[in-house]
Amino acid sequence: MNKAERFLAACRRQPVDRTPVWMMRQAGRYLPEYRAIRARHGFLEMCRTPELAVEVTLQPLRRFDLDAAIVFADILLPLPAMGLDLAFEKGDGPAIRNPVRTAADVDRLRPVDPTEAIPYVLEALRTVRRELDGKAALIGFAGAPFTLASYIIEGGASRHYEHTKAMMVADPAAWHRLAEKLADVCAEVLGAQIAAGAQAVQLFDSWVGCLSRADYAEFVRPHVERVFARLDTSAAHIHFANGASHMLAEVRAAGGDVIAVDWRLGLDEAWSIVGHDRAVQGNLDPVLLLAPQDRLEERIADVLRRAGGRDGHIFNLGHGVLPMTTPENVGFAVERVHALSRRTAVADAGDAT
Amino acid sequence: MNKAERFLAACRRQPVDRTPVWMMRQAGRYLPEYRAIRARHGFLEMCRTPELAVEVTLQPLRRFDLDAAIVFADILLPLPAMGLDLAFEKGDGPAIRNPVRTAADVDRLRPVDPTEAIPYVLEALRTVRRELDGKAALIGFAGAPFTLASYIIEGGASRHYEHTKAMMVADPAAWHRLAEKLADVCAEVLGAQIAAGAQAVQLFDSWVGCLSRADYAEFVRPHVERVFARLDTSAAHIHFANGASHMLAEVRAAGGDVIAVDWRLGLDEAWSIVGHDRAVQGNLDPVLLLAPQDRLEERIADVLRRAGGRDGHIFNLGHGVLPMTTPENVGFAVERVHALSRRTAVADAGDAT
Repeated sequence: MNKAERFLAACRRQPVDRTPVWMMRQAGRYLPEYRAIRARHGFLEMCRTPELAVEVTLQPLRRFDLDAAIVFADILLPLPAMGLDLAFEKGDGPAIRNPVRTAADVDRLRPVDPTEAIPYVLEALRTVRRELDGKAALIGFAGAPFTLASYIIEGGASRHYEHTKAMMVADPAAWHRLAEKLADVCAEVLGAQIAAGAQAVQLFDSWVGCLSRADYAEFVRPHVERVFARLDTSAAHIHFANGASHMLAEVRAAGGDVIAVDWRLGLDEAWSIVGHDRAVQGNLDPVLLLAPQDRLEERIADVLRRAGGRDGHIFNLGHGVLPMTTPENVGFAVERVHALSRRTAVADAGDAT
Repeated sequence: MNKAERFLAACRRQPVDRTPVWMMRQAGRYLPEYRAIRARHGFLEMCRTPELAVEVTLQPLRRFDLDAAIVFADILLPLPAMGLDLAFEKGDGPAIRNPVRTAADVDRLRPVDPTEAIPYVLEALRTVRRELDGKAALIGFAGAPFTLASYIIEGGASRHYEHTKAMMVADPAAWHRLAEKLADVCAEVLGAQIAAGAQAVQLFDSWVGCLSRADYAEFVRPHVERVFARLDTSAAHIHFANGASHMLAEVRAAGGDVIAVDWRLGLDEAWSIVGHDRAVQGNLDPVLLLAPQDRLEERIADVLRRAGGRDGHIFNLGHGVLPMTTPENVGFAVERVHALSRRTAVADAGDAT
C-alpha cells in the first residue's frame, strides 16, 4: 500500500495499514526552506509561479513521511477573474479593494474559467502529481462560498462579519445570488484541479463558524450542496468547516466524503455526530505541536484512541500549522501517528482482499 | 414590579411581567454622547474617573427602557495591581508590556485588594446604584481566569492563544498556579463590587471558546468553580462563556445562576443543554441590530419563542453591541422585547403571590 493508496483508502473508509496523516499549512512559514523562498518573492508571486509553488508544495514531503501533499495556493486566487481587486498587503493579510456591498455589486461579478483564472495552480498540480508518482496523494482546494463571500463583502479578514451577515438578513436575494455565483466558482475551480491531477479536493469553510446553525441551514448549506453535487466523484471530497462544532450534522449533510473537524470536540464525539458513514479528518489542536514531545505524543495517542481504529480516519490538525512550530515536532508527530496506528491485523486483511 | 425587581426575578427563575433586557456594551461607541466624551478622554482615564464612568454607564438608560445597567469598566483594570504593565494603545486594543511566560513570572504576580486596585470602579458602582434607585438593576463584572490569563500570557488580544495553550500543556503546574491567582482576583473584585452595590455580577470568559471541552474541564473549570464558590449569594451570578456551544454543559457545571449564551445555538437547544434549573441570558446575534427593523423584529420574536415563556430568561445579545449599530435600532429592540413578551397571566400570578 503506497501513501497515495493509503490516503485515498481512508477517504473511502477502506482498511489501511496505518492512519494516513497530513497537516493543513504543512507548506509554510515554520519551514526555514519556505522562509528562504518567501524572503525573495511576494506571496502572490509564489502562488502564480508554478516552479515556486511546486517547490514549496514538495518541501514538507522531503522532510516528513506525509501521506498527502496539498498544492501551494490560496483560496482567494480566483477572485481577480471575477472582477475583484485582490492584494496581499505586508503584515495585513489579504485585501479586496472593491468590496461587494450591494445587489448591483453582486451582479457585476463575472464567472470564472479556471484555465484562464488560475492556470498556474493547474500547472503546479500537473507537475506535482508527476513528481509524486504515488509517493503521496495530491490534494487541491478551494474556499467555500461563505468564506469567500466574507472576504469579498468585508474587503478582507474580519472579526464580526458585520457586512456579510447584514447582507444576508437585509437583502437575502442578493446574498443568495452571490453565494450561488461563488458556489459555481468553487465547483469550476475544484473540477479543473481534479482534471489537472488532484486526487482529493478540500473545501475550506474557514469562517462559517460565526453563524448560528439556523443561519447556516438557510444561507449557506444549499450553496455548499451545489458545489459538491457538481464535483467529479473520481476524486475524494473533503469538507472542512472550522469552528462548526455546533452544527456538524448540518455540515455533514451539506456534503463531502470526509468531514474535517477542528479540535473543539473529541474526535469520537465529532465522528458520532457526523455519522460513521462518513470519513473524518482531524483533529489535534495545532498548539500541541508547541508542547514537549511527551505531551504531544499523549495527545496524538488520545486522538487515535478516540478514532477507535475505525476505517476512515485521516490524521490532521484542527487548523493550520502555526508559524512558531518547529519542524522537529512536525516530524515527530508524523512518525508517531504512523507508529501508534500500525494495524497488523488490518494490514493482513488488506492483503487478503 | 420595577425594573430591578424584574431583572433579579428572572435571574432567580421567578415569574416576571415581561422579559427583562439589557445589552452587552450598551454603554459604548454606537452612542454619539459616548463618542463625545471619548473624544476628550482616554479609555483608561474614563474608567478611572468615577464621574465619567457613571455618566457613560447611565447614558443608555436615559435613552432606552433597559432593565439593567452595567458599570462602565474593563476586565483588565485589576491587572496593574498584580504587577502587570497595562496600556490601551490607540487602535490596537490592550497591551501587557511585561507578559507572563514562565513559572517565575507567575510567582511574581501579586494578590489584589480591590479597594486599592479599582477604587474608582467601586465608587462608580456606589453612585450609579444610588442614582438608579431601583429604576434598573446594577451589574458588576470581571474577566474569568482563562480570559485574563490569555491577555496576560499573550501580551494582548490573540488569534490562536499559542503561548497560553503552550503553558497549559508544557507547564501545567505553572498554569494552575496562575489560574488560581486569577480566580482569587476575580472573586475579590466581584465580592467588592457586590459590597459596593452590584445586584448581579457577570463573569466574562470571552475567549475560552478556543479550548476543547476536555481542556476546559481540566484546565479551566476548577478555577471558575473557585470564583463562584467564593461569591456572596446575595447577588445574582451570571456566567458568560463566549463561543462555548461545544461545552455548555461544562460551563453550566462550573457555576452561575444565569448562563449567558452566544447566538450559535438556538436558545431552546442551548437552554436544554444548560438545564432548565438555571436561568439563561441571550441570544440575539448583535449583527441583527444592523438589519431592517422587520427582520430584527422577526429574530427577536424567534428568540422569545425559543425561550418558550419559561421563567428565567433575560434577553441580551450573544456578544456586545457593534459600534456601527444605530441607537434607533437598539431602542426598537428593547421596546419589542418588552412588547412581545408581555405576560398578562404571569403578571396576575405574580400579583397573587
